[in-house]
Amino acid sequence: MEAAKIYLDYNATTPVAPEVVEVVSHSLKDLWGNPSSSHEYGFKAKEAIAKSRNELAKMIGATSHEIIFTSGGTEANNMVIESITKLYTNAHIITTTLEHPSIKQPLEHVPESISVSYISAKEQSGCAVDVEDVISAIRPNTKLVSIMLANNETGVIQPIREIANAVKQLNPKILVHTDAAQAIGKIPVNVNNLNVDLLTIVGHKFYGPRNGALYIRSGCKILPLMYGGNQESTLRSGTENTPMIVGLGEAARLVNCNLKSYSTKYATVRDYMEEKLKELPNVIINGQSDVRERLPNTCNVSFLGFNGREILKKCQVTLASTGAACHSSETKVSSILLASGIPKERAAGAVRLSIGRETTFSDIDIVVKELKEIVSK
Amino acid sequence: MEAAKIYLDYNATTPVAPEVVEVVSHSLKDLWGNPSSSHEYGFKAKEAIAKSRNELAKMIGATSHEIIFTSGGTEANNMVIESITKLYTNAHIITTTLEHPSIKQPLEHVPESISVSYISAKEQSGCAVDVEDVISAIRPNTKLVSIMLANNETGVIQPIREIANAVKQLNPKILVHTDAAQAIGKIPVNVNNLNVDLLTIVGHKFYGPRNGALYIRSGCKILPLMYGGNQESTLRSGTENTPMIVGLGEAARLVNCNLKSYSTKYATVRDYMEEKLKELPNVIINGQSDVRERLPNTCNVSFLGFNGREILKKCQVTLASTGAACHSSETKVSSILLASGIPKERAAGAVRLSIGRETTFSDIDIVVKELKEIVSK
Repeated sequence: MEAAKIYLDYNATTPVAPEVVEVVSHSLKDLWGNPSSSHEYGFKAKEAIAKSRNELAKMIGATSHEIIFTSGGTEANNMVIESITKLYTNAHIITTTLEHPSIKQPLEHVPESISVSYISAKEQSGCAVDVEDVISAIRPNTKLVSIMLANNETGVIQPIREIANAVKQLNPKILVHTDAAQAIGKIPVNVNNLNVDLLTIVGHKFYGPRNGALYIRSGCKILPLMYGGNQESTLRSGTENTPMIVGLGEAARLVNCNLKSYSTKYATVRDYMEEKLKELPNVIINGQSDVRERLPNTCNVSFLGFNGREILKKCQVTLASTGAACHSSETKVSSILLASGIPKERAAGAVRLSIGRETTFSDIDIVVKELKEIVSK
Repeated sequence: MEAAKIYLDYNATTPVAPEVVEVVSHSLKDLWGNPSSSHEYGFKAKEAIAKSRNELAKMIGATSHEIIFTSGGTEANNMVIESITKLYTNAHIITTTLEHPSIKQPLEHVPESISVSYISAKEQSGCAVDVEDVISAIRPNTKLVSIMLANNETGVIQPIREIANAVKQLNPKILVHTDAAQAIGKIPVNVNNLNVDLLTIVGHKFYGPRNGALYIRSGCKILPLMYGGNQESTLRSGTENTPMIVGLGEAARLVNCNLKSYSTKYATVRDYMEEKLKELPNVIINGQSDVRERLPNTCNVSFLGFNGREILKKCQVTLASTGAACHSSETKVSSILLASGIPKERAAGAVRLSIGRETTFSDIDIVVKELKEIVSK
C-alpha cells in the first residue's frame, strides 16, 4: 500500500473548505439565474453576490462597493498594471523583484513610455524591501507602487504600511497596490491600516474557490481590463460567476470568524516544525524573524550542500515545493530567494514547507523524519 | 401559494446540468491541487484539465491544443479584440451592429489608430448580415472580421461559413472570429466547416458553468490578455480554475453525446409555441425562417401595439426577457432588433422566448395562455 501523503504546499493552493464546497454546489443548483436578469431568478443571484461582497469587504476593512470580483489574482494584478498604462502615457511604476509573475510579467509588457523601477530585498532587512529604497525610487511621474504584502516563498511580510505612509506623505496621488494573495487568511489584513488604494484577493490561497477580487479604494480611478455588459459597476464585464463568488464570500466568512484561531494554530505548528528542523545538520531557516515577521504558516528552509528540488524528488510522503508553482517546471535556483538577499548556495538547497489548517504535529514529525533520512545519506 | 414559474430565458443563461453540478462538486473536493505543482496533486488536476480540453475540442471539431480556457465569453471576446490592437498600429476591423456588448464595447475602446466598420443586418436577408456587405467593407489593412454565429435576441444564424470563405478568398491573412456563445449546444458548430480562425465558447449558455474558452486555430497569432504564470500555453495566465474547467468539459461531453436530440426537441417545442403564438392577434414572429435559419430554441415575437417590457412585467408565471440580460435595466427599444432590420414599432413590442432542455408542451400552453390574457385586455 502506498503511504498516505502529507501536503505541505498550502502556499501553492489550499483545499477548498467543506463549507465552501457546500455553498458552491448549492449555488450551482439554485443560483444559476443571470444576475442581470429582470426577474426573480436574476434578483436571487444578485442578492447572493451582494452578500458575498459584504463578507469580502468585512475581511479587509473595506466597504462593499470597493470590491470588484475577478477571475483570480492574475486578473486583478493585470487590471492594476494595465490601468496605469492606459491612463498615462509617461508613467513610472515602482515594484520589487519579489513579486508574483502576475505582477512581474505584465510589467515586462508595458509600452515603452512606461518606466519601471525594481526594488530588491535585503537579508539583513529580514528578506524584506527597505522603505527608504522605495522612497528614493520615487520620481515626479511615479503613478503606482505595487508591492506584495507577504512573499509566497519566504513568507516574509513586507513593510507595506510604512511604505504606503511614506509614499503618501511625499505624494498622495501615487496609488499604492498590494498583492495580498498569501496574507489573507493567515494574518489580519486591513486596507486602512495598510493605507493602500488597491489590494488583490485570491480565493484559492485561503480555502476558497479559484476566483478573486480587487479592492479599489473609493475615489481611486481604475480602468476595466475587459469591456462588455458593464457588470461590477462597469469595472468588470462578464456574467457574474455566482457560484464561485458565493464560494469566495463563504471563504471570507470563515476567515472573518476564525482568523485568530487559524493564525495561532499555524504559528504553533510551524514553530514546532522549525524547532525540529533546526535539529538537522546544516539547516538554515530563511527570513530573519527578529527583523521582519513572516507568515505564520510558512517555513523556507535551506539544507546546505543539497539541492531543494532533489530533496523533494526523493520524498515519498511529503508534498512540497521549492517555490511558486508557476515556476515548478524550471530547474534553476529560485529567483525570489536570490532577490530576497539569500546567497545562491542556500537558495539552491531551499525547500518551502507551507502548512494548512489540517496540518498536525504528527504530520510534522513524519515530514521531518523523512527529510532527516534524505539529508543524512 | 405562489404559482410555479416557467423560465423561458435560456438564452440569458441556462441551469447547470446535474451531471455538471456533480463533476464540479467532485472536483472542488478532489482536484484542488495546483495544476502547475510538480507533485501528484498537481498532476491529477492537470490530467483532468487535459481531458476537459479534449471534450471541448471534439465539440467544435478542433484539436485540443487549439482550446484556451478563459473566465468566460467576455474574456475570450476581449482577448481577440485586444490582441489585434496590440499587434497592429493601423488595423481595420469589421464587425456587425448585432454583436454582444463583449465585442461591441471593447471595439469602442480601441486606440484611435484602429478603425472599425459596422455591418447591419436586413430583414429581407432574414435579419442576417449580407456576405457582400462584409466583403465590400474589406480594406487593405483589414486584420479581423468578428461576427457572431447566432444572434442572442432573434436566434438568426449568420452566414459565417459563407463570409469566412469569401474573406479568405480575398485575403487569407484576415482572421475570422465568431462568437458562438448562443449556437453551441443548439446547432452543430464545427470550426473547419465554418472556416473560422477564432471561436468563442461560453459555458453558461449550454448548461455548463460560468467560464468559457477561446478556440485559436493552430498557427494563428493571438496575444494574451493577461500575463503571469504562463498557464494555457502562455496564452492565459492564472492558476487554472480546475472545477469550472472540468465542469465545462462535462457540459461539452453532454453536447457531444446529445446534440441531435437537444436540437430536435428544441425545434419541436419552439415550433409548437410559434404555432400557438400565431393564433394570438397582431403577432409577428421576427426573423424570416425561409431566408435564414434560426436557433431551434429561440422565438422573438412582437405583439403589435404593446411594449414587450410591459408585457413581461404583467406576467405572473412566465420568466423571459426582451433581449440580452446585459441590457435588461435599460428601458429603450432593443438596439439589436433595430440593427436586425426590424421596424421600431415591432421592436418595441418584442419579447424573446428562449426554451431549454426542460421546457414541455404544457409549459408552452401555460405561457401562451398568460400572454394571450395580457394582450387581449
